[in-house]
Amino acid sequence: MENNPLKTERTKVKRVPKRGLYDAQSIFDILDSASICHLAFNYQGQAYAMPILYGRDKNFLYLHGATTSRMLTTIVNNSACLTVTLIDGLVLARSAFHHSMNYRSVVLLGCPQLVESEEEKLLGLKAISEHLIKGRWDEVRAPNAKEMKATSVLKFPIEEGSAKVRAEGVKDERADYQLDIWAGIIPVALNASTPIPDEQLSADIPIPNSVKNYML
Amino acid sequence: MENNPLKTERTKVKRVPKRGLYDAQSIFDILDSASICHLAFNYQGQAYAMPILYGRDKNFLYLHGATTSRMLTTIVNNSACLTVTLIDGLVLARSAFHHSMNYRSVVLLGCPQLVESEEEKLLGLKAISEHLIKGRWDEVRAPNAKEMKATSVLKFPIEEGSAKVRAEGVKDERADYQLDIWAGIIPVALNASTPIPDEQLSADIPIPNSVKNYML
Repeated sequence: MENNPLKTERTKVKRVPKRGLYDAQSIFDILDSASICHLAFNYQGQAYAMPILYGRDKNFLYLHGATTSRMLTTIVNNSACLTVTLIDGLVLARSAFHHSMNYRSVVLLGCPQLVESEEEKLLGLKAISEHLIKGRWDEVRAPNAKEMKATSVLKFPIEEGSAKVRAEGVKDERADYQLDIWAGIIPVALNASTPIPDEQLSADIPIPNSVKNYML
Repeated sequence: MENNPLKTERTKVKRVPKRGLYDAQSIFDILDSASICHLAFNYQGQAYAMPILYGRDKNFLYLHGATTSRMLTTIVNNSACLTVTLIDGLVLARSAFHHSMNYRSVVLLGCPQLVESEEEKLLGLKAISEHLIKGRWDEVRAPNAKEMKATSVLKFPIEEGSAKVRAEGVKDERADYQLDIWAGIIPVALNASTPIPDEQLSADIPIPNSVKNYML
């Protein structure tokens, strides 16, 4: 596993192993393409999965929330799992059994750490903002001291995990290819539609570059 | 909490409580609108979140996988968390701090049970298939005995959980409304694009109703 530093016994793909990817670039690409992740953690012996925004800077994912957030205080310095899933298509086979989805997913294991310095907190918040919509950070009012104080930023190391990708056509049983049943892929993707300006926005404020680029 | 049978101390929404919903219909609507869920569970003391398909029949969600699936054998009769998240929009405020997303999410806690009877297994598989794409089940070859034997079906009770919904416009600090910064919502949704027929499909097999209806 020397060439796959992220691969460990507990993160290698067991079901359909050929779909597993372990190189950092493949994992970064999927992380950078998704909008949100689900964070799994234990609280009083119960596993929870909660959706949360994130952003990446090099080998870390940054998370943020209120300093009072139960989830964030629970996961600091405790083992958690961060999962990202992109749905790319419905795979419609001739048999019910071979129906599937095309997807790209990443599962990371790690111990999130609280970011202490103001400088790295800002870096983390910018990474989250830029992940949500690139270029927006420089267009808006930066966080003030009160907002910074009310916000916790955590960093999740990208050091143990795997990606799993299905990006194929239909796979049917040999005999089923003779059946008079339509089979194929329906591609799906998260798409944006026309931005809706805030009701209180002055009519003379144009749509900014971040939004224009997001709509491309 | 009598009118909110799904609400418990551990599933009530803590952050922004007004966004919490606990009635079965609101929860069913979100579950029925999403494509996949993330399942959180413990394995050897580590929390994992894994994406998986599901389908609903009344007060149960059905899950399926290979009988050899580690995840499924781990969660049978053990406490798990099933989370569904739909992303509806990017909320672009005048300040970085008030950026957000519009979303609908459901978090359910429960102990999945293995479905034993063939009849209920088929019901569960049909629910999953119909959830993926309505009307498809009756168009395709049904599972045969070998496929049924290779497949485990689990049922997850919808009895403890909550929904959380943000469906609002931009909320900015009072002073920030004076800033010369664009603010608004970018709606996003998972959209389908033109179906791609399987390469081996005869040209005389038309697109079926399930696919036509899915594209509407």
